[in-house]
Amino acid sequence: MSDVRIREVGPRDGLQAEAPLAVEGRVALIEALVAAGCRDVEAVAFVSPKAVPSMAGAAEVMAALDRSAGVRYWALVPNARGAELAAAAGVDALSVTVSASETYSQKNVKMSVEESVTAAGEIVRLWGDGPVDVVVSCAFGSPYEGDMAPAAVAALGRRLLDGGATSVTYADTTGMATPRRIDELIAESGPDIGLHLHETRGTGLVNAYAALEAGVRRFDTSVGGLGGSPFAAGAAGNLATEDLVHLLDDLGMTTGIALDRLLTASELVADLVGHPVPSRVAAAGPRTRLAAP
Amino acid sequence: MSDVRIREVGPRDGLQAEAPLAVEGRVALIEALVAAGCRDVEAVAFVSPKAVPSMAGAAEVMAALDRSAGVRYWALVPNARGAELAAAAGVDALSVTVSASETYSQKNVKMSVEESVTAAGEIVRLWGDGPVDVVVSCAFGSPYEGDMAPAAVAALGRRLLDGGATSVTYADTTGMATPRRIDELIAESGPDIGLHLHETRGTGLVNAYAALEAGVRRFDTSVGGLGGSPFAAGAAGNLATEDLVHLLDDLGMTTGIALDRLLTASELVADLVGHPVPSRVAAAGPRTRLAAP
Repeated sequence: MSDVRIREVGPRDGLQAEAPLAVEGRVALIEALVAAGCRDVEAVAFVSPKAVPSMAGAAEVMAALDRSAGVRYWALVPNARGAELAAAAGVDALSVTVSASETYSQKNVKMSVEESVTAAGEIVRLWGDGPVDVVVSCAFGSPYEGDMAPAAVAALGRRLLDGGATSVTYADTTGMATPRRIDELIAESGPDIGLHLHETRGTGLVNAYAALEAGVRRFDTSVGGLGGSPFAAGAAGNLATEDLVHLLDDLGMTTGIALDRLLTASELVADLVGHPVPSRVAAAGPRTRLAAP
Repeated sequence: MSDVRIREVGPRDGLQAEAPLAVEGRVALIEALVAAGCRDVEAVAFVSPKAVPSMAGAAEVMAALDRSAGVRYWALVPNARGAELAAAAGVDALSVTVSASETYSQKNVKMSVEESVTAAGEIVRLWGDGPVDVVVSCAFGSPYEGDMAPAAVAALGRRLLDGGATSVTYADTTGMATPRRIDELIAESGPDIGLHLHETRGTGLVNAYAALEAGVRRFDTSVGGLGGSPFAAGAAGNLATEDLVHLLDDLGMTTGIALDRLLTASELVADLVGHPVPSRVAAAGPRTRLAAP
């Protein structure tokens, strides 16, 4: 077991806002991430190809994968129909989104928070005993309502667990979390949570560090730091997997991920999307990489 | 008194690697930073205009400033001659660099570390009772030698204080610091130090946070996150002033700097240098800036 469990969301959240890639490229990326040691990979989303064209072909991606033992391949699903498709495609685990922000929920998925909670419950019942992680978006603030009250966000999380979710991940969808607000939420929720952090305001890594100090051991990250919601104005990339692994390696906390191989996967995704990735470790190399003599 | 003292180094370290700006632009930037509440501003460097063309005209910049009471205008000087020029130009305080890395010192200033310590001592004697801060570069690692031993770095700092420096600032010149290494140095040096952090590997803000937790209250930052040593391969920008102020505001720690006015100065420097600045708070706006209704 690793000290910290990283769920790599690059093939889904990272590629979501990029131009659509061919199935082979998406498969190659997932396999490169697994080769780097990633054991939880959000590989696909079973969502409307009209709404998110880059996520079309999820079943084809799953079918084309050379699957590795010990790896959980996750899919994001928005509803029971998506869960059925994910089951048919052989997905191991589901992530489901519920927003803490009423306005964000309406704008993003055209459902109220209550309707989303109901939809999550339907997915949980359909999925049976398999893992369903509910990602609470806008958990630290929304660009519409501003700050979210930590007690209310944690209460929403508890309700989702009571409804059968196997875990809850709190997402800083638009980069409004800070170390103080991370601490405040953990004081309400306890540390047995996942965190999905963004670098919109350059605070992804410092928020992860504050959470580590408070005992959190589960993080969603995206190779290269790609990603961000296409529905949230101004939202920049996810916390980069290589930036978090680089920090954890130096802290002596294991992830099971080999940074050098991860950087190979990061180079691959930059090639695939056709532009440099936001990760600064990807750009500069790890701190242990010295100048040529 | 503010909780945290920020020395704004944008007009010097930030502009150093940019194409030379006219004196009026540099003066406008300094005055915008002072208007934002900066009370320590590294305004100029008295260095060879051949080696660093963008720092030419330091005396002209100082002469053109409409100086504000309560603001310390700093100059970087490499030697006694620079200190004499700084004195003649009416500078309030000096910063002087000594490297912890022998190879970096040789490549950067063509002096050994010992020769740099001697030069710093000459500057201190010449400057008399005024503030001289010695910035220890490569304090957390060098791209040539790798890690620096914290005890040796802290011993160098103590020696500089014994030699008459009024304060010591440890610089992460090439982005090799991590929270663990920040803690290790502070364990040796105590928290009464300045830190000059870089975002080369995206760790500037998390390192500042670790240092704050350990009691450090002095930081060098650069408006927009501009800067980085022109002599260090792969070195990216300084920790952005707006990114640190944004964090400190949320932590309830005062700096005397108004973030909104600082963002105005950041827009100005982006205009002056003709490209976007690296700061993510500058790009996304503060967390309190909500979507239009």
